[in-house]
Amino acid sequence: MTKKIKKIAVFTSGGDSPGMNAAIRSVVRACAFMKLECVAIYRGYQGMIDGDFKPVNARSVNNIINKGGTVLKSARCEEFRTPEGRKKAHEQLVKAGIDAFVVIGGNGSFAGAQLFNEEFDFPVMGIPGTIDNDIIGTSYTIGFDTAINTVVEVIDKIRDTASSHNRLFFIEVMGRDVGHIALNAGVGAGAEEILIPEQNLGLERLLDSLKRSKKSGKSSSIVIVAEGDKTGKNVFELKEYVEEHLPIYDVRVSVLGHMQRGGNPTCFDRVLASRMGVKAVEALIEGKSNYMVGIRDTKLVLVPIKEAISAHTAIDEELIRVSDIMTI
Amino acid sequence: MTKKIKKIAVFTSGGDSPGMNAAIRSVVRACAFMKLECVAIYRGYQGMIDGDFKPVNARSVNNIINKGGTVLKSARCEEFRTPEGRKKAHEQLVKAGIDAFVVIGGNGSFAGAQLFNEEFDFPVMGIPGTIDNDIIGTSYTIGFDTAINTVVEVIDKIRDTASSHNRLFFIEVMGRDVGHIALNAGVGAGAEEILIPEQNLGLERLLDSLKRSKKSGKSSSIVIVAEGDKTGKNVFELKEYVEEHLPIYDVRVSVLGHMQRGGNPTCFDRVLASRMGVKAVEALIEGKSNYMVGIRDTKLVLVPIKEAISAHTAIDEELIRVSDIMTI
Amino acid sequence: MTKKIKKIAVFTSGGDSPGMNAAIRSVVRACAFMKLECVAIYRGYQGMIDGDFKPVNARSVNNIINKGGTVLKSARCEEFRTPEGRKKAHEQLVKAGIDAFVVIGGNGSFAGAQLFNEEFDFPVMGIPGTIDNDIIGTSYTIGFDTAINTVVEVIDKIRDTASSHNRLFFIEVMGRDVGHIALNAGVGAGAEEILIPEQNLGLERLLDSLKRSKKSGKSSSIVIVAEGDKTGKNVFELKEYVEEHLPIYDVRVSVLGHMQRGGNPTCFDRVLASRMGVKAVEALIEGKSNYMVGIRDTKLVLVPIKEAISAHTAIDEELIRVSDIMTI
Amino acid sequence: MTKKIKKIAVFTSGGDSPGMNAAIRSVVRACAFMKLECVAIYRGYQGMIDGDFKPVNARSVNNIINKGGTVLKSARCEEFRTPEGRKKAHEQLVKAGIDAFVVIGGNGSFAGAQLFNEEFDFPVMGIPGTIDNDIIGTSYTIGFDTAINTVVEVIDKIRDTASSHNRLFFIEVMGRDVGHIALNAGVGAGAEEILIPEQNLGLERLLDSLKRSKKSGKSSSIVIVAEGDKTGKNVFELKEYVEEHLPIYDVRVSVLGHMQRGGNPTCFDRVLASRMGVKAVEALIEGKSNYMVGIRDTKLVLVPIKEAISAHTAIDEELIRVSDIMTI
Repeated sequence: MTKKIKKIAVFTSGGDSPGMNAAIRSVVRACAFMKLECVAIYRGYQGMIDGDFKPVNARSVNNIINKGGTVLKSARCEEFRTPEGRKKAHEQLVKAGIDAFVVIGGNGSFAGAQLFNEEFDFPVMGIPGTIDNDIIGTSYTIGFDTAINTVVEVIDKIRDTASSHNRLFFIEVMGRDVGHIALNAGVGAGAEEILIPEQNLGLERLLDSLKRSKKSGKSSSIVIVAEGDKTGKNVFELKEYVEEHLPIYDVRVSVLGHMQRGGNPTCFDRVLASRMGVKAVEALIEGKSNYMVGIRDTKLVLVPIKEAISAHTAIDEELIRVSDIMTI
Repeated sequence: MTKKIKKIAVFTSGGDSPGMNAAIRSVVRACAFMKLECVAIYRGYQGMIDGDFKPVNARSVNNIINKGGTVLKSARCEEFRTPEGRKKAHEQLVKAGIDAFVVIGGNGSFAGAQLFNEEFDFPVMGIPGTIDNDIIGTSYTIGFDTAINTVVEVIDKIRDTASSHNRLFFIEVMGRDVGHIALNAGVGAGAEEILIPEQNLGLERLLDSLKRSKKSGKSSSIVIVAEGDKTGKNVFELKEYVEEHLPIYDVRVSVLGHMQRGGNPTCFDRVLASRMGVKAVEALIEGKSNYMVGIRDTKLVLVPIKEAISAHTAIDEELIRVSDIMTI
Repeated sequence: MTKKIKKIAVFTSGGDSPGMNAAIRSVVRACAFMKLECVAIYRGYQGMIDGDFKPVNARSVNNIINKGGTVLKSARCEEFRTPEGRKKAHEQLVKAGIDAFVVIGGNGSFAGAQLFNEEFDFPVMGIPGTIDNDIIGTSYTIGFDTAINTVVEVIDKIRDTASSHNRLFFIEVMGRDVGHIALNAGVGAGAEEILIPEQNLGLERLLDSLKRSKKSGKSSSIVIVAEGDKTGKNVFELKEYVEEHLPIYDVRVSVLGHMQRGGNPTCFDRVLASRMGVKAVEALIEGKSNYMVGIRDTKLVLVPIKEAISAHTAIDEELIRVSDIMTI
Repeated sequence: MTKKIKKIAVFTSGGDSPGMNAAIRSVVRACAFMKLECVAIYRGYQGMIDGDFKPVNARSVNNIINKGGTVLKSARCEEFRTPEGRKKAHEQLVKAGIDAFVVIGGNGSFAGAQLFNEEFDFPVMGIPGTIDNDIIGTSYTIGFDTAINTVVEVIDKIRDTASSHNRLFFIEVMGRDVGHIALNAGVGAGAEEILIPEQNLGLERLLDSLKRSKKSGKSSSIVIVAEGDKTGKNVFELKEYVEEHLPIYDVRVSVLGHMQRGGNPTCFDRVLASRMGVKAVEALIEGKSNYMVGIRDTKLVLVPIKEAISAHTAIDEELIRVSDIMTI
């Protein structure tokens, strides 16, 4: 049986995402509300190893709910992948009297937490913070909603100039393994074609689609390309390929990059993060461990971390079909 | 048995909401994709009675997915509440060879559609377009996500000046019967207190909460008030009450009003609207009628209109609790 | 002759405006660059009287350039209006070894600074921070550009719903004595009519204008009303008056209020504030005093405070004419 | 002497910029107000050669003041560079009874207009529409203010993630020949270093600056690079160079690209465009020709086109100095 939890640590790990601060705030305030001590760990697992801790209370997290990034900073940490690293981390936690931790991050961060839990029987709880929305067991991860809005707002701007000039734009968005950002932002922005890692559209079909689009009277086109798309060509190679085969188009490329990770979180992400933080603390108090907080429909659920990291979520076939229909 | 659907009409009705244009576009393009004719009706049921129709094709709805409001305009219509009005409307539809319609709107608009369906055995399908998110059977209505973001962005601005001056702000948001906007935007904006129609917080508790907030070291406070809140006082009366009983605060009032209905729709609302439009057309083709398209978790569902309009959705008790915890 | 300046204080005073933080940052960093000590005073003149001082260096103002409000807080201060109050303030400055101060604020704050300078021969320099843009001697005040963009963005949203419903909106914006916000935001938002304190349009002309607007085929109308407009009616009375005399319109009111003071500053306001902060410090170093930094065309100038506070800037007649022409 | 102007044509030319639609609207409505006919030309000089004209009135330009891009589309046109092309264009104008035109664009477009005026004694008037702000004789061009805000908003987002991870970002912004966007957005975004075409900072100084920045306690750095910067290396080469010489930094690159040309125009750009459109029409009515409308301080002026296109505007040395001071 787990011993009574009196002091909880919270940290962010891996790539940052908008809404992480709202999740931190929620964990801290839930601890305060439930009369637990709370400790912030800086720079993720590296900070855990280094003992970079700071006691925090409800007022420590004032005015951060609407800020992008993470006030606790984040980092990837090679040392934590070694047994020695994890041992040091555990010693630091014990020394500081910490009984459990909440990790806000993605797949890699959860895998580390699970291993840590197994090795030291240390209570851990995960909150899914990543813009990729690729974690099994939750319909939404914190940051995804903000990221797709950032992408859509940029494409709205690009469309202004695209339609002023009869141009074709290839816009690369994040998504090395999964196309959720590309597909959602593509449908939201009214893109003419969306290239994702899960599907090999094929270059021929892209050309056909662009020709059809031109014939149907559209004066400009936007093609969204996820980083890891399956055509085997990056966005600059796509540009050259199309310019060679479809010289009627004036083709431009835009690589959105890291702006997709920043920005003030949307209301959806702030509310989701606020709810998940409370749930994580409550679950630890109830003696649960090794779960990720997820959301299914509008209800919070606990998902075994093992399940959460077992695979990426599949792309929504219905949404691909909607995308095809919308680009008629 | 329903006859084969060859021509579908689409219109918006009641109060407008961001994303209605994306829904119109989706219905129109789904018709084009499935080789059906599509007719737009202007000004809702009034335009139906007046025969204010226009044939539309896939290109008619270019460049509207990102626009607020409704290009088909909307209106409330007294005449449609009378049997004579509905009879005229039916004659216009028959004359124009229209086999079914898709109505984008809220409860009142759906009630009209249901009655019309019963009286004339005319196939109807509803898409929930309202910022209030108060319709049974769907986790989200089109426009809600945009509205809560609009509110949160405004409160972020007000908080800048509130915290520069140690002020208390009462901010009135939309929601005559339901507090979904108030509660979600309130949690998202980090409001100190949220007054909603579903709950009588009581004036005493409000004062206590504000005193506690002051004591806990907060230098400013934001109180969100839904239009229909249950304390029995409007936002200006609240101001006077608090100024009298808590003179330490410099109290200001802001009534957000109609800006909450406008604005470019968020990606979430655009994607939701795009999916729902396709589903509505598909359902009509399959011979279904008298349903509203809803979303449950991430899957589209069909909800009998009778059920959809039977009541308002209940407020989320867990979110109220999260709100209480966050304002510690 | 003024003695050598070694330590400069900076504070914000009066109503806050977006960009004040950028100005604070600039003063602090200019001091650091020029090897002067810098002290921040909290809560304006009240904090000066209370000795609420804090030494600051270049790193103290990291990550505030893009934040609305003022990190030094602001307040109006009755005590500073008395000779005793100013005497206390002077003693605090002397005790802290402060040789000069930079005040960021509006007319009232400058008047206090001038009086203080006269009484104690203490070097003072003003930076115009107010959303009203009403200060003689500078083409722009810090915060004005952000405020007019805030107003225009809100009206863009309201117009979505106005044009969906054939509505008339009265929108009240800030400006008790001057109509710069109303006139600029009104032209920028394409308002049909703009009511400002400097001009008595007359209710008859308003009705005529609205009738003409209706006749010319416009389906909706936006009327901007500055707080202090000269028709002698507030925005709610205007609504009643028009509804009585022009029943064709469905009239709505929106009072924008304090959101106009907040928000992340625009690039214009950040650059202006950055430039003015440097200039203020340089001017003090050069032995100048009792000036306000202004901008004329794209060049910074020094304006005697006496001149700056002598009157409000006049409204631009050419812009009124442009407004009339645009609403044809 | 110029004959009486009865019919004016308006078009956009060259790269588009936000606010062009507001300028079009202003020219069209000024014509309507002054009882002149107005004709829109599509696709710039190419449309002039092709006779792609359309009569427009005050209502034709409803609801475009807040839209990015140009509803008249724009294009570069090789044919207009030939005497034959210009002859054809002149014949089309004469055939359509057009007495004068207003061209909204940049240097290249103005040069074409001037030549056309000389060859055919045809009245022309220019309005500066370009995001580059590089035209002699006007303090601001239409679109510049929007572009710098777009850049600053993106950098604000990137900074969230930069400061979460101790990263260095190179951000490429538009500006092949001039650094106005880079310098203004760089100061506005608080960039650590700004590389512009007008100044060869040198790679050594860049490294020194970055080292100093690190030492001074900054955890992340943003370097803005104008397209045409003088170090002789593009942004990807800069990344490699710095990674090799300063391995402490995790370096990322972001190329903003065409989003800088789009977006809803700011209030400043809308007001500027509205004023310039009126002035252009008035000047033509007064018999003037071959001028560009400019703004000096807050007053409109007429600048001979010859002067306007004689050179690029110089970079502001004072702002470079402010930038240096701010990055201490």
